[in-house]
Amino acid sequence: MAHLLSTSCSLKLPYGQRSSTQSFSQRLTTCPALFTLQSSMIPSTRIVVRGSRLQKKSFVCATFVSQEAPSQTSSGSHQFSFEPSKSQRVMVIGGDGYCGWATALHLSKRGYEVAIVDSLIRRMFDHQLGLDSLTPISSIHNRLRCWKSLTGKTIGLYIGDICDFEFLSEAFKSFEPDAVVHFGEQRSAPYSMIDRTRAVFTQQNNVIGTLNVLFAIKEFREQCHLVKLGTMGEYGTPNIDIEEGYITMTHNGRTDTLPYPKQASSFYHLSKVHDSNNIAFTCKAWGIRATDLNQGVVYGVRTDETEMHEELCNRFDYDGVFGTALNRFCVQAAVGHPLTVYGKGGQTRGYLDIRDTVRCVELAIANPAQPGEFRVFNQFTEQFSVNELASLVTKAGEKLALDVKTISVPNPRVEAEEHYYNAKHTKLIELGLEPHLLSDSLLDSLLNFAIQFKGRVDFKQIMPNVSWKKIGVKPKTVAA
Amino acid sequence: MAHLLSTSCSLKLPYGQRSSTQSFSQRLTTCPALFTLQSSMIPSTRIVVRGSRLQKKSFVCATFVSQEAPSQTSSGSHQFSFEPSKSQRVMVIGGDGYCGWATALHLSKRGYEVAIVDSLIRRMFDHQLGLDSLTPISSIHNRLRCWKSLTGKTIGLYIGDICDFEFLSEAFKSFEPDAVVHFGEQRSAPYSMIDRTRAVFTQQNNVIGTLNVLFAIKEFREQCHLVKLGTMGEYGTPNIDIEEGYITMTHNGRTDTLPYPKQASSFYHLSKVHDSNNIAFTCKAWGIRATDLNQGVVYGVRTDETEMHEELCNRFDYDGVFGTALNRFCVQAAVGHPLTVYGKGGQTRGYLDIRDTVRCVELAIANPAQPGEFRVFNQFTEQFSVNELASLVTKAGEKLALDVKTISVPNPRVEAEEHYYNAKHTKLIELGLEPHLLSDSLLDSLLNFAIQFKGRVDFKQIMPNVSWKKIGVKPKTVAA
Repeated sequence: MAHLLSTSCSLKLPYGQRSSTQSFSQRLTTCPALFTLQSSMIPSTRIVVRGSRLQKKSFVCATFVSQEAPSQTSSGSHQFSFEPSKSQRVMVIGGDGYCGWATALHLSKRGYEVAIVDSLIRRMFDHQLGLDSLTPISSIHNRLRCWKSLTGKTIGLYIGDICDFEFLSEAFKSFEPDAVVHFGEQRSAPYSMIDRTRAVFTQQNNVIGTLNVLFAIKEFREQCHLVKLGTMGEYGTPNIDIEEGYITMTHNGRTDTLPYPKQASSFYHLSKVHDSNNIAFTCKAWGIRATDLNQGVVYGVRTDETEMHEELCNRFDYDGVFGTALNRFCVQAAVGHPLTVYGKGGQTRGYLDIRDTVRCVELAIANPAQPGEFRVFNQFTEQFSVNELASLVTKAGEKLALDVKTISVPNPRVEAEEHYYNAKHTKLIELGLEPHLLSDSLLDSLLNFAIQFKGRVDFKQIMPNVSWKKIGVKPKTVAA
Repeated sequence: MAHLLSTSCSLKLPYGQRSSTQSFSQRLTTCPALFTLQSSMIPSTRIVVRGSRLQKKSFVCATFVSQEAPSQTSSGSHQFSFEPSKSQRVMVIGGDGYCGWATALHLSKRGYEVAIVDSLIRRMFDHQLGLDSLTPISSIHNRLRCWKSLTGKTIGLYIGDICDFEFLSEAFKSFEPDAVVHFGEQRSAPYSMIDRTRAVFTQQNNVIGTLNVLFAIKEFREQCHLVKLGTMGEYGTPNIDIEEGYITMTHNGRTDTLPYPKQASSFYHLSKVHDSNNIAFTCKAWGIRATDLNQGVVYGVRTDETEMHEELCNRFDYDGVFGTALNRFCVQAAVGHPLTVYGKGGQTRGYLDIRDTVRCVELAIANPAQPGEFRVFNQFTEQFSVNELASLVTKAGEKLALDVKTISVPNPRVEAEEHYYNAKHTKLIELGLEPHLLSDSLLDSLLNFAIQFKGRVDFKQIMPNVSWKKIGVKPKTVAA
C-alpha cells in the first residue's frame, strides 16, 4: 500500500510549484487512467445503503469493510508522531466546503475512516448569488471517485441537511462516528447580512443543525468527540487580551474562571456564539466531549491532498460575500484591481494557512476532550491588520511585476477600524502544531495561483455589496 | 373618566383580602352589567382591520380614535410621578401570558395605548401536556372585553406568530408602536428539556421571533424602544458578584467593560442568552434602543388590575413544567403535598413580586434606552435559596394551621446546589422602583389563594417529571 500511495502521489509537487503552463483539461485527462488503476487495486470496498426510510432521501452511504493503514511518508516537517487507531471513524459535516473538503482528504490520508455529511447548499448559494469559485471544482461525487482512484481510500458520503434530524440520525447510526468535525454551517458574515431571510436562515441553520448534532451524539454515540468550528470573531475586539475560551477574573475580592465575554459583529458570528453556549451546556449537562476551534481567517487553497489532482482542487472564493481578506487581495492583485481596504484598514484579526486548518483539526481529534469537557482552542497562527496584508500583497506583486494599488472603500461592516488586538493561541501549539507562517513564497504561490485562473474572475463580484446598516426585510435577488 | 375608573375599580379590594367565601360563579355574574354600563360610555372606539392580506390571518386589530388620559388615583405608595405621553403606544408581545397579561393591563391603566400580540401557544402547551392554570382564566377575547367594560380602555389584539414575519410586519405597520415589550417566548426551562423537538422549538421560536422583532423595528419603527424580557438565569451561578449586564475587568494591565459572561443551564435559558447577544449587536449596528430585563423568578398572581374582576384573573402555574418555586410551594402547602425541594436546596436565585414586574416594565418604558444603547437591568428584588423559601412557606402555613412538610427530591436539573450568589439589582431602584418585598402578609395571601382553588389542583402535575440528563430525541406525549 505504501507503494500505491507513492504512485498516486506522483502528481504532487511542492506547494506552489505546479506548472501554470499545463492546461486544466490536459491535467484532467490524467484522472481516468489513475481511477482504473487504483480501483482495481482496492480489494474489498462496498457501498451500503441502510434503512428503508432512506429511499426518500438523497442519501449515499459508503462504508468500507477494510481500511488501509496510514501512510508513512516523510515529505515534510509537519508529519505528526500520532498514529490514529484503525477503528477511528470521523464524520466531517460540511465536508464539501472550503475547509471541510481539505480536512476530509487530510484525515482520510492520515488513516482515519472518513465520511462526509453535506447538504451541498454552499454550491447553491453560488448559483443563487451568481458567484463562482475562482478554481473550477468537481462535484462531490467526482471528487470522491478521484480520491479513491488515487489513494484506494473510500470516503463515505451522506447527502442531506443536518437540520433534518431523521436524516442525521440515519447517518449517525450507519456510520457510528468516533469524532464529528462540524464545518456544516453557513459561514459568511456578509451572507448573513444580505437580508432578513438570510439572517434568519443563518442562525436557524447553524444553531439548529448544531443542536441536532449534539442530540445525535447523546442518543447514538455518547463517547463521540465533537470538534466544532467556531470563529475568532466570537470575541470581537475587546481592549484586553483575548484568552482561549475562558478568562480568570477577580472581582470584588472573589475569583472565578468564566467563559470569555463574546462580542460578535454579524448574524453569522452570533450564530457561532450561540453554538458555543449551547455546546458548553451539553458538555456540563450530558457529559458531551467537545472542542470549539475558534478559527481565524483562513488563506491559501492547496493542501498536500487537494493538490494531488485537479479533480481534488479546493474552492477559492474571492467575491464580496464569501471571499476573505488575503485570498481576495491576491485575486485583486492578479487582475489589476485595486486592493479594497474597508475603511481605515486597522482591523486586526488572526489568520492561518489552510494547511494548518487541517492539521489543527487532526490534532484536536488525536487528543480528544474529556467527557464533559468543553475545550476552546484559538485556531490561528499570526495576527495581521488589513493594511499589513495589503502591504504584503503589494510587495509580493512587485516581485511578479504586478502594479498593485490599494484603495480605501467605505466599510460595509460595523466594526472598529483601529483597535487593540492581542489574542492567545498557544493550546494547539502545545499539542504539536508547527505553523506555516505567511511567507513570501506562499504569497508568490497564491498570486501565481490567482494569475493562473484570472480568466475566470468576475469583476462584478469583487467589490463589497452587502451593508451591515442597510440590510432590510425584503428578500434580495441578483439580476443576471 | 376619573369617575368611570372609580366606578369600575369598585370591585378592587386590597391585595389578598378578597373574600374566599364568594363563589367564582357568583362573582362572574357582575361582569355583564359592568360591560353594558362601560360600553355605553365609550364615545368613539372602532375596530379597524387593515390590509387585504390580513384576510388569511387570524388577526384582530383594534385601534382607538381617542384615548382617555391616565387615571390620577392615589391608591398606594407605588404611584409614579411619570405620566406617559398620550401618544405612547406599547405593543406587548406575549400579552396573554402570566407576566404579559398583568403588564398589558397595568400599562393600559396607566394611560398607554396598548396592543397585545400573541399566538396563544401558551394555552396550547397546557392542552398538549394535560396541564391547567390553578386559576380559571378567560379567553383573551373575554379578558379584553371585560377590561374595556371596566375601564373604557381598548387594548388592541393581534393574534399570530411573530416568527411569521408577514404577520409581524402587518402588526407593526398597523399599530405603530413606540415601545415593544417582548414577553412572547417559550419561557419554561423544563419545557425546553422535555425532548429534542421542544428544545429545538424553544430556541427556534425565541431566537427567530426576537430577530423578527428587531428587523420590524429597524424597518418600520426605528425609534421604537425594545423592552425585552431576559432572565437572571443567563448568568448562571458564578463565584463572583453578578453585575447588571456588563463587567469592567482589568486583565494583563489593560481594562475594558465587557458583556458579563453567561452560563445558562437549559435550552430555554440559552435562548435568552442568544437573544441578548443578537439584540446587543443590532443596537451597535443599527442603532436599536433596547432594554434587556434579566428577570428573576416571579411570584404572586394578583396585580391591581387583574384583581379588578375574575375575568381578568391571571394564570397561576404550579405544575412541574411551568410552575416556579414559590408559587408551587404555596399550592403544595395548600393541598397537603410536601414541598418539593430539588436536591440540597441551596440553589439561590433572585425573586420578585409580579406587581414589581409590571412596574419595572413601566419604568423601562418611561425611561427609554438611547438610540444604539443596549441596556441591561437585573429585574428582581430579593434573593432566596430554595430552602429559605420552603422555610418561609412552612411558617406561613403554620399560621393557617396547615401541616407543611418538606421533602428533598432528586434534582431533575443539572445545577449547583450550594453556591455563592450575589447579584446586583440597583438600576431599577434608581429609576424609582419601590419593591414589594416578600412579606408574611403576601405569603398569607398566596396561601389563601391556593387554598381557595385547591379543588382544581391536579396532584399528578406537582412532581418534577422532566430530567435534564434523560432528555431524548423521541417526541414525548402525555397519556390521559
